[in-house]
Amino acid sequence: MSGQPRIAIDAMGGDEGVHVMMAGAALARRRHDGLRFTLFGDEVRIKAALDQHPNLRAASDVVHADTVVDGSDKPSVAIRKKSSSMAMAIAAVKAGEAGAAVSAGNTGALMAMAKLALRTMPGVDRPALAALLPTLGDNDVVMLDLGANTECDARNLVQFAVMGAAYSRIAFDLERPRVRLLNIGTEDLKGTDEIRDAAAVLRSATSLPLQFDGFTEGDKIARGDADVIVCDGFSGNVALKTAEGTARFVTDVLRKAFTSSIRSKIGFLISKPAMHLLKHHLDPNNHNGAVFLGLNGVVVKSHGSANDKGVANAVHVAARLLEEDITRRIAADMAGIQSLSAAASKLEQPVK
Amino acid sequence: MSGQPRIAIDAMGGDEGVHVMMAGAALARRRHDGLRFTLFGDEVRIKAALDQHPNLRAASDVVHADTVVDGSDKPSVAIRKKSSSMAMAIAAVKAGEAGAAVSAGNTGALMAMAKLALRTMPGVDRPALAALLPTLGDNDVVMLDLGANTECDARNLVQFAVMGAAYSRIAFDLERPRVRLLNIGTEDLKGTDEIRDAAAVLRSATSLPLQFDGFTEGDKIARGDADVIVCDGFSGNVALKTAEGTARFVTDVLRKAFTSSIRSKIGFLISKPAMHLLKHHLDPNNHNGAVFLGLNGVVVKSHGSANDKGVANAVHVAARLLEEDITRRIAADMAGIQSLSAAASKLEQPVK
Repeated sequence: MSGQPRIAIDAMGGDEGVHVMMAGAALARRRHDGLRFTLFGDEVRIKAALDQHPNLRAASDVVHADTVVDGSDKPSVAIRKKSSSMAMAIAAVKAGEAGAAVSAGNTGALMAMAKLALRTMPGVDRPALAALLPTLGDNDVVMLDLGANTECDARNLVQFAVMGAAYSRIAFDLERPRVRLLNIGTEDLKGTDEIRDAAAVLRSATSLPLQFDGFTEGDKIARGDADVIVCDGFSGNVALKTAEGTARFVTDVLRKAFTSSIRSKIGFLISKPAMHLLKHHLDPNNHNGAVFLGLNGVVVKSHGSANDKGVANAVHVAARLLEEDITRRIAADMAGIQSLSAAASKLEQPVK
Repeated sequence: MSGQPRIAIDAMGGDEGVHVMMAGAALARRRHDGLRFTLFGDEVRIKAALDQHPNLRAASDVVHADTVVDGSDKPSVAIRKKSSSMAMAIAAVKAGEAGAAVSAGNTGALMAMAKLALRTMPGVDRPALAALLPTLGDNDVVMLDLGANTECDARNLVQFAVMGAAYSRIAFDLERPRVRLLNIGTEDLKGTDEIRDAAAVLRSATSLPLQFDGFTEGDKIARGDADVIVCDGFSGNVALKTAEGTARFVTDVLRKAFTSSIRSKIGFLISKPAMHLLKHHLDPNNHNGAVFLGLNGVVVKSHGSANDKGVANAVHVAARLLEEDITRRIAADMAGIQSLSAAASKLEQPVK
């Protein structure tokens, strides 16, 4: 890729339509001077939307795509839609015309397409889906895998730890992010063979740019004492969705409580700034942008229901990872771990 | 067991001491006329605590136990403490002197001891840990396994479904509880082989007293559209703890928001009844009492930090399961599933 950093945007994905994708990209553009865009999708609708955003229009090329990947398309169907806005955005990354792609479309399709087109990086067996989750600490926590791999072996988990740490270093400017493995207890004997074996490797891999702090549990994800939490894609997906569901449950109960009497309603009105702060903390748009790590290129998934601020956040994540060259960083770290003889011998053991 | 239903109480487990266990049992006694107790532990301390609770004293026998299982005891150490209050409470169930045991002690030790002494019921391969979780619907949801089994095959999951449904029928007087398997998507192809195979068996097992409604995801646990949610112990433990941690996270953020300004503090004071309602909904004491299902006898784990109301809830759970004879119900259902030829042939297939 030559010249200025460029992001390929699938303008058609997402429940909220082209306008929200364009509004989000325009917002992100303001935070990243010199960022350029290629916008894939229905040319007429994209150009109409760009009329509202002259700053984005000045930094963008528009490329027409004939078709779209539907939310209901199975990955096997989606990957055959070569002229879809999603496929063309990923193809632009593959061809080196863009450094990163952002889509708010079908996650399974995006994952399958990105893996097929971009391939996994040298040293990485499987890509993982990573996201930032809010904590009570100073920084968000990077959690991965969130659903790209239903089952993972020890080797996968170790690689996820290295990739997650690279993400955390870029996102929060940390030197040695604190990494923990998600488990069902903190004692050494807890969990599956895969988790215990991964812990043994990470404990011995002291030359890596991360600090391995052992196991953590589901109730400590938001506590802020880890920068990276590593798990298989099944547990990660369960944890992420359970956290979303619980936050919604608590705020639903709260809303009911606040509307249960005149007195509560008055209190609610007076405490509105406080409630606004809570809403801000829990707003998924502030944490939008899940990243596929481990591919030859950056691919970011924006939530289908994200608003313009959410899309801007996803584009910002892509821009940061591109500017800081996460792919090169992960490649260097992977080379580091493969030279660790203790780690290597452990990794080569067959895992039950 | 002859005569009135009797519950064996490990008076020594729990962080809050003998007094809280006795206060809880006394509260539960008021809801269950005719319930009798055997209290195991330090005789002097138990008798001192009973001075406050003449109603409980009148319904109880006290049996001195020389020692206690510590919170830090590994299960392998704990099971050798035959004269501990925990071991003696379980032994009373084994001997038929009590129908159920309640302990607030070390979970791993309780699980290991209960399994060793009581053995799994005919037709059940592995016991599971089940609890009631709050929902936005009319009833709580029974979720299992919450950590007794790190890995589970399809056969285990099907048995958990049957056991969880029996629990739900008793707790909420339902005829055919709606059962779902926890997964990372709702499409048929999602998840592991174990989950898909279990779904196939449950779909065909239409004569069982449950209604199988397919898969659910972590964000829908609290939605109230399932009466029973079935999963392996690893995912279940992650989900349960993530829900606890998220609820605490949201209320912590809320507390910070409410104390962030004078205005918010005033609003908080006015809305105190509303906040009280929220606290009531989220108070773990209202959902205290996890049950080991699948053993020849009822064993209930009370949370170590439960207050008297929480202990009363755990004792109430034990009393209900005992009164409604859950062990016999599960045995009957297990016989039912084994006679289903379609299910049986599927269950006999080796599971990857």
